[in-house]
Amino acid sequence: MEFSSKLLENAVNEMSQLPGIGKRTALRLVLHLLKQSENQTVTLAESLRKMREEVNFCSNCHNISDTKLCEICANPNRNEALVCVVEDIRDVMAIENTSQYKGHYHVLGGKISPMDGVGPGELTIQSLIDKVKNGRVEELIFALSSTMEGDTTNFYIFKQIESFNIKTTTIARGISVGDELEYADEVTLGRSIVHRIPFETSLKN
Amino acid sequence: MEFSSKLLENAVNEMSQLPGIGKRTALRLVLHLLKQSENQTVTLAESLRKMREEVNFCSNCHNISDTKLCEICANPNRNEALVCVVEDIRDVMAIENTSQYKGHYHVLGGKISPMDGVGPGELTIQSLIDKVKNGRVEELIFALSSTMEGDTTNFYIFKQIESFNIKTTTIARGISVGDELEYADEVTLGRSIVHRIPFETSLKN
Ligand SMILES: [Zn+2]
Ligand SMILES: [Zn+2]
Repeated sequence: MEFSSKLLENAVNEMSQLPGIGKRTALRLVLHLLKQSENQTVTLAESLRKMREEVNFCSNCHNISDTKLCEICANPNRNEALVCVVEDIRDVMAIENTSQYKGHYHVLGGKISPMDGVGPGELTIQSLIDKVKNGRVEELIFALSSTMEGDTTNFYIFKQIESFNIKTTTIARGISVGDELEYADEVTLGRSIVHRIPFETSLKN
Repeated sequence: MEFSSKLLENAVNEMSQLPGIGKRTALRLVLHLLKQSENQTVTLAESLRKMREEVNFCSNCHNISDTKLCEICANPNRNEALVCVVEDIRDVMAIENTSQYKGHYHVLGGKISPMDGVGPGELTIQSLIDKVKNGRVEELIFALSSTMEGDTTNFYIFKQIESFNIKTTTIARGISVGDELEYADEVTLGRSIVHRIPFETSLKN
């Protein structure tokens, strides 16, 4: 693509760094911004910059939060001994949306994926193990998506905490194997968290 | 969507103002930025803001340009008496890419579309008519996409300049009716601009 403007080219190149946004789509989005008020672009740019620079992660569950402790962790009516292990904030939002769950979460920040250079050290696994070690957890619910990476991550964590004899469960597979949590319908996802099964049982299937 | 962070919610809301970007996609893009360096988001935000605030349009053809007169209009080897009327910069880029055209452009900035509130006054039509009035144009090539809005716009301009007796042509329809110029292959598009036909002839088809 040959651009008549360096300013335009830079904006298109930066936008096309985003996943799933090719050069043509980036150009279409940028030309759209040019047709809108200057204020709209400034507000968009400012919201991205501010979010990235000031983002905070809950010191307990590592979910994105504007406060040191997120609303869920700070809520005394939620059971902190019940911890649901998820990949990211989208899974928290999906499960919260079912209104079926009153425990805490632990947000890993991803799944173990050697192909993408994501090892256990890139995730919040140590902090989860520490929680278990400190005796604060009675039950751990594995709710990662059932892909190879998800299974690997579940199993890695399971091996680390096996000796502490806490209850480990996994959400019932009402949702199809391989499906992402965030796209499941509320009823199915709600039921699968209520009917969770022992993690060992899930290994036998 | 219920967010645990106002910063995140703002960023997602702003991103989802972009055409074709829903809330879920916006969240995915924003979470991607959170996994990248802070610098990447700052650079993206800055490139958008700078582009929008400092964008300049060529004083002659209205194409996006970093200089008062764009490279095409400033090039003495290009024929300024031959003017190709296009919708936006993507069409200029597509035609330039064929290396088949050595005239000038006139970028309208859109098509007449009463449904979208775009009248002749929102486009650079008056400036085009002035060019023709001043006797600087020998031939006008209509290269808008052949949609109802494109045809309406062509016809509106044609009626305004009919009395000046300049040559009006339209690019040959090697490309399928209704197709966007920017997606045409180079060979077909190059041929269609070389084999352009009188505008009146195109009205009869
Ligand atoms: Zn928390
Ligand atoms: Zn120009």
